[in-house]
Amino acid sequence: MSTTHPRAARPALIIGSVAIDRIATSVAESGDILGGAATYASIAASYFVPARLVGVVGADFPKRFMQRLRRHGVDLGGLQVDPAGKTFFWSGRYGENFDRCENLVTDLNVFEKFSPVIPPEYSDSRYVMLGAITPALQHQVVDQVAMGSFVLADTRGLWIQVARPDLERLLPRVDLFVLNEDEASELSGERNLIVAGRYIRRMGPRIVIVKKGSHGSLLFHPDGFFALPAYPVSRLVDPTGAGDSYAGALIGYLASVNRTDFAALRKAIAYATACASLTVESFGVNRLSMAGRETIDLRYRELVKMTRI
Amino acid sequence: MSTTHPRAARPALIIGSVAIDRIATSVAESGDILGGAATYASIAASYFVPARLVGVVGADFPKRFMQRLRRHGVDLGGLQVDPAGKTFFWSGRYGENFDRCENLVTDLNVFEKFSPVIPPEYSDSRYVMLGAITPALQHQVVDQVAMGSFVLADTRGLWIQVARPDLERLLPRVDLFVLNEDEASELSGERNLIVAGRYIRRMGPRIVIVKKGSHGSLLFHPDGFFALPAYPVSRLVDPTGAGDSYAGALIGYLASVNRTDFAALRKAIAYATACASLTVESFGVNRLSMAGRETIDLRYRELVKMTRI
Repeated sequence: MSTTHPRAARPALIIGSVAIDRIATSVAESGDILGGAATYASIAASYFVPARLVGVVGADFPKRFMQRLRRHGVDLGGLQVDPAGKTFFWSGRYGENFDRCENLVTDLNVFEKFSPVIPPEYSDSRYVMLGAITPALQHQVVDQVAMGSFVLADTRGLWIQVARPDLERLLPRVDLFVLNEDEASELSGERNLIVAGRYIRRMGPRIVIVKKGSHGSLLFHPDGFFALPAYPVSRLVDPTGAGDSYAGALIGYLASVNRTDFAALRKAIAYATACASLTVESFGVNRLSMAGRETIDLRYRELVKMTRI
Repeated sequence: MSTTHPRAARPALIIGSVAIDRIATSVAESGDILGGAATYASIAASYFVPARLVGVVGADFPKRFMQRLRRHGVDLGGLQVDPAGKTFFWSGRYGENFDRCENLVTDLNVFEKFSPVIPPEYSDSRYVMLGAITPALQHQVVDQVAMGSFVLADTRGLWIQVARPDLERLLPRVDLFVLNEDEASELSGERNLIVAGRYIRRMGPRIVIVKKGSHGSLLFHPDGFFALPAYPVSRLVDPTGAGDSYAGALIGYLASVNRTDFAALRKAIAYATACASLTVESFGVNRLSMAGRETIDLRYRELVKMTRI
């Protein structure tokens, strides 16, 4: 499952939630499984470079979940374990067409007081992904990363609604901002995603990616516009973590080539699309974790082929 | 506006509605303009090959509308003029985000009794587009076309609901079936468009295209799957006729190269996408009609560039 990386490979640093999830769809239930944005992102990134994770869990966090991350070579030196608390627990139920998700339980637990601290040994990280933690915490991370680092930030619709000033101040500090179509419309006040993407770039980030789920994604880069359809998934099992896997693969691939030009971003998006397509084919990280780099490379090549005019 | 075609070019035969439309959006009104599926399709097709139109209008059909079609070299020998009747009139109002369209007036008039008759001089047409007339009328056209012709059929959600048996019998008689995502889900009973497209191919047509509006389109061909994003339109004025322009460009391009293999279909879809993007940038056929082949070729090349991984 894990990949060996050249010693010189630049690591990807990922900050975000690590959770225990319990997910129901119209046809199945997951039981208690490994979840959280930083989990999906780290595993996706680990296919390209060594991943470093900053997050927090409680004393109840199962050993087998730690092992799953370690099997991908994820460096857990930045994973705080709070012996007095419980791990972030989330439970949700998807509707029949996966277009709605009802939150059943959101117990933030130790994640409620999460204060991201980048360990000194991670200070050489030059590719950093901020999971969709509050914009205030995202600022706190950016304060700690080295000058010249490449910073990718994800967000949530909720932060656009309740923490917009913080988010607006964050955007100029971010190199690549990734958000979904609803978030892009909410943030820009524009339903047309082409207009929305351009507008959000003017809010600060050099690069913007708008994710459209099964309709693919749009890249707004200083050197051009790029659009990629989704990988054709015929059996969607659980969409949880697709966006996190996407972002993790993005930062991982960019770190692996140490480039963020238009050509590198286009390839990164294809790898991100491949990883997201694997994630949705099982509950949790299972399919992504078991797939191996060969399967990701195969889907990448299929994407190249199925989009060639 | 019109293009000269080599004498040997295979014409495209287009059967469908010719109408007078009156369209309102949240910001503007069109007045009475040239409309109808066969109108949009013929003008789009005319950029690739000579177009032949079979339809019906009434005595009130304005001369300037005839002239607009003739300026594109559209052969109107198959356009019946009923001196006793009035032209099909449609009026609709789009909501603010163009996601709904309220029908204000649908006066079928002479179109209610339309019986498509292919004139003898059109009997050498080998590329035929059936606009979204009733499946019964589509059968009537297929009965008249020469063996070995390539037949493209469009449809409407209404026919899936009220004329499904006719439509199901039509599908094996069609080479290329084009429908939008809602129609694909309705016809197949499948929300997943990958599954839906494959399912509909098993219903008879050798090739299926599922259109997703601003999210592009999907091609299900015996030789492979292809997905193309939409051309990025930043100012949507009126989506009416986008699908008809798309289908017209498809049949026109395929006729121009006299091929229907996977590679030809992929290119045809890019040209179709370019033509549809022009149509939505104005009320009616105006923008498409004025654009010229150079603008279509430019958008084609931009599509090639913006989808290259």
